[in-house]
Amino acid sequence: MRAVDIIIKKRDGEELTTEEINYFISAYTRDEIPDYQAAAWAMAVLLNGMTAKEITDLTLAMAQSGDILDLTGMADHAVDKHSTGGVGDKTTLVVQPLVVACGAQVGKMSGRGLGFSGGTLDKLESIPGYRVDLSKDEFLKQFREIGNVLTGQTGDLAPADGKLYALRDVTGTVASLPLIASSIMSKKIAAGAHSIVLDVKAGVGAFMQSVEDARQLAKLMVEIARQAGRRATGVISDMNQPLGNAVGNVLEVKEAIQTLHGEGPEDLTEHCLEIASYMLVLTDLARTVIEARQQVEDALNSGKAWEKFRQLVIAQNGDVSYIDHPEKLSQARIIHPVYASRSGYLSQIHAQIVGEMAVVLGAGREKKGQQIDHAVGIEIHHKVGDFLEQGEKLFTIHADSEQKLQEALPALKKAHQWSNEPVDPLPLFYEVVMEGQRLHKTKK
Amino acid sequence: MRAVDIIIKKRDGEELTTEEINYFISAYTRDEIPDYQAAAWAMAVLLNGMTAKEITDLTLAMAQSGDILDLTGMADHAVDKHSTGGVGDKTTLVVQPLVVACGAQVGKMSGRGLGFSGGTLDKLESIPGYRVDLSKDEFLKQFREIGNVLTGQTGDLAPADGKLYALRDVTGTVASLPLIASSIMSKKIAAGAHSIVLDVKAGVGAFMQSVEDARQLAKLMVEIARQAGRRATGVISDMNQPLGNAVGNVLEVKEAIQTLHGEGPEDLTEHCLEIASYMLVLTDLARTVIEARQQVEDALNSGKAWEKFRQLVIAQNGDVSYIDHPEKLSQARIIHPVYASRSGYLSQIHAQIVGEMAVVLGAGREKKGQQIDHAVGIEIHHKVGDFLEQGEKLFTIHADSEQKLQEALPALKKAHQWSNEPVDPLPLFYEVVMEGQRLHKTKK
Repeated sequence: MRAVDIIIKKRDGEELTTEEINYFISAYTRDEIPDYQAAAWAMAVLLNGMTAKEITDLTLAMAQSGDILDLTGMADHAVDKHSTGGVGDKTTLVVQPLVVACGAQVGKMSGRGLGFSGGTLDKLESIPGYRVDLSKDEFLKQFREIGNVLTGQTGDLAPADGKLYALRDVTGTVASLPLIASSIMSKKIAAGAHSIVLDVKAGVGAFMQSVEDARQLAKLMVEIARQAGRRATGVISDMNQPLGNAVGNVLEVKEAIQTLHGEGPEDLTEHCLEIASYMLVLTDLARTVIEARQQVEDALNSGKAWEKFRQLVIAQNGDVSYIDHPEKLSQARIIHPVYASRSGYLSQIHAQIVGEMAVVLGAGREKKGQQIDHAVGIEIHHKVGDFLEQGEKLFTIHADSEQKLQEALPALKKAHQWSNEPVDPLPLFYEVVMEGQRLHKTKK
Repeated sequence: MRAVDIIIKKRDGEELTTEEINYFISAYTRDEIPDYQAAAWAMAVLLNGMTAKEITDLTLAMAQSGDILDLTGMADHAVDKHSTGGVGDKTTLVVQPLVVACGAQVGKMSGRGLGFSGGTLDKLESIPGYRVDLSKDEFLKQFREIGNVLTGQTGDLAPADGKLYALRDVTGTVASLPLIASSIMSKKIAAGAHSIVLDVKAGVGAFMQSVEDARQLAKLMVEIARQAGRRATGVISDMNQPLGNAVGNVLEVKEAIQTLHGEGPEDLTEHCLEIASYMLVLTDLARTVIEARQQVEDALNSGKAWEKFRQLVIAQNGDVSYIDHPEKLSQARIIHPVYASRSGYLSQIHAQIVGEMAVVLGAGREKKGQQIDHAVGIEIHHKVGDFLEQGEKLFTIHADSEQKLQEALPALKKAHQWSNEPVDPLPLFYEVVMEGQRLHKTKK
């Protein structure tokens, strides 16, 4: 088999065989196919597409390029979730304790934030002592013992994906649905999940700007899971405005804690209850979403979910006094509230701008490896559709310096747009994509 | 400017600016853009195409990546020709003396054969002593003195093209009309030609298999020439069967000598007279093709063209006694005639197969740098449309060993196909593409 023949076949729009894809990915992982051939191939994939079978083959080839964990054998109800990333998305911090409290096991590997998108690891590191670098053995031990693990990547998972993603980043081949879907799914499959809820964000603060693009990605990932013998549900949720009120690491941890105490923002609470419900159904702990919903609400209201969050923090060496007394968590030097300059209906709180200004304040990073400031960030106090009187508190900036505050302020003001006429609130979810079907569902 | 943005622009089907193309090519030449980015870009160009303006910009950027000769300032009627390559194509050996005898100046750089396509340099090296490695100074001196130079590439011409071509070869991005056209034209423009006849071959023994593809390439190159302030005529000629009768280096030199003595095969003679006529018109030595045709026929019949071939060989250190007495040129050990196994009309003499069998015999090379055997090759004795009686001589193999003879024999027999019904001869030319117009012309 020759790499150039595989490139030409894809260039000419033909379907690659399983053997061709396996050869290409394994030879590329071993550096036997050079980057320039992989780059030409990736561009041909981007422009000519791939069939569902090819995408599944690619996903499995990348998953098999390194270690593969199998959590199913160790637990009856192992379930995972993945979010495609957004602004203010602290869902995992709430959802994982919820489903663990309901009898599921979660051994989850998360990532860091990049650009305007936040990352769960950065949020967890706001909690002094919390370890995100568990070894594979530590990961498996904790999973076996308590079925509740949340850490960074462990072992050599899908190295082909890591290598290909870095190449795509510099060759204009990121924006390919088959490559995005196989990248996400290869890591999820290598991480051992057999049941996965995929939270695909759609909107100005998401990688997929339109619901249609998000739907395509969700359908594709659900189909890959099916073909790979896994179970998946895709949930398309809104990312035009931030999720919840807090953007920034400590601020988001505090909001997650409030939510686990039943005192979180309505949109975040509802979002987490729904995601958790789909996870329970997927791993057969509930027969219907309605039944699941009852279980997760009970777990929230009874305090069981909160206990599972404490269990997680303790297991991973976090200082539990900081979450029991969140006021101990680090605070920004400057806390600057901004008030509505007019009365009216909020018609936009631009998620991408809010995310970018959080990066400006130091809460996120432009490039991998950059240091971040856990305390800084932004609180928004309203949602699209709300009516405000002039002078009401609109948002609050948590900044480390006056200079950064002034840098972020004008864009944050502009991120809020107004209307004289009533504006509909944004939906929380657009659609749910299940194996072999697509349920239409619009919730507000 | 960032390479990745230029790749993304082309990926999205947008037109690149002159500045973007100049940046990309010059940075790639200086190794500041890595191969993997150029490979992704080349695939995007292949799949999304380029406008005529982009292709001209690319051509000029590649031409300007190294030395640029200007022959126009040194001669009133400098003219060049280029063939896209084929089997038995010894046109240059005949055409250059013809047009020089008519008052044109030719300073031509040729290439070597690769795969089933022959190359002029290999043919010239059949003549003992002939130097194909003139330095730039030697090239210019000989051009100034006699206006008659035929050598290998001199100076650092279009290094960007050399680098990009090597990359395209291993990334499945050869078969792109914009990249093929700009590759050919960048070298021609860097080599100083202001008037160029482009002999674009169409058929099973050519890079362009269909007349339509050849027409597209010819039109594109003529348009590039126009936009770059050059003059060009594109001639689309047949390459389904070999041109002339001889395939193999010494055999082709002998056939060129015969042709210059007025005793060459009818198809080759006619082909050369036509190409030479278009060259004279292009460089204003004749007002019409008919007038030019009279001049080149006179040059052939008077022996003046032959004298210009002798002049060329002498100037480049070739031993003229070998062309005055071609029987002195090296001969293959085995000369094996093959006779018609049946009576009938010849319906095919498959040019690619004949070319490939010439490589099997040792006349050509599979890879750059391989040694070749000048003496070996194939003579065909008939053309498509000819009627033969069983037992007439069909073709002759010139081989170095019995083993290679037996290797080539079955395919060469199969390359000849028969019909019981009369078969039309193949046309010599399909079409002529001139600046701003396209003359339809079919000659037999």
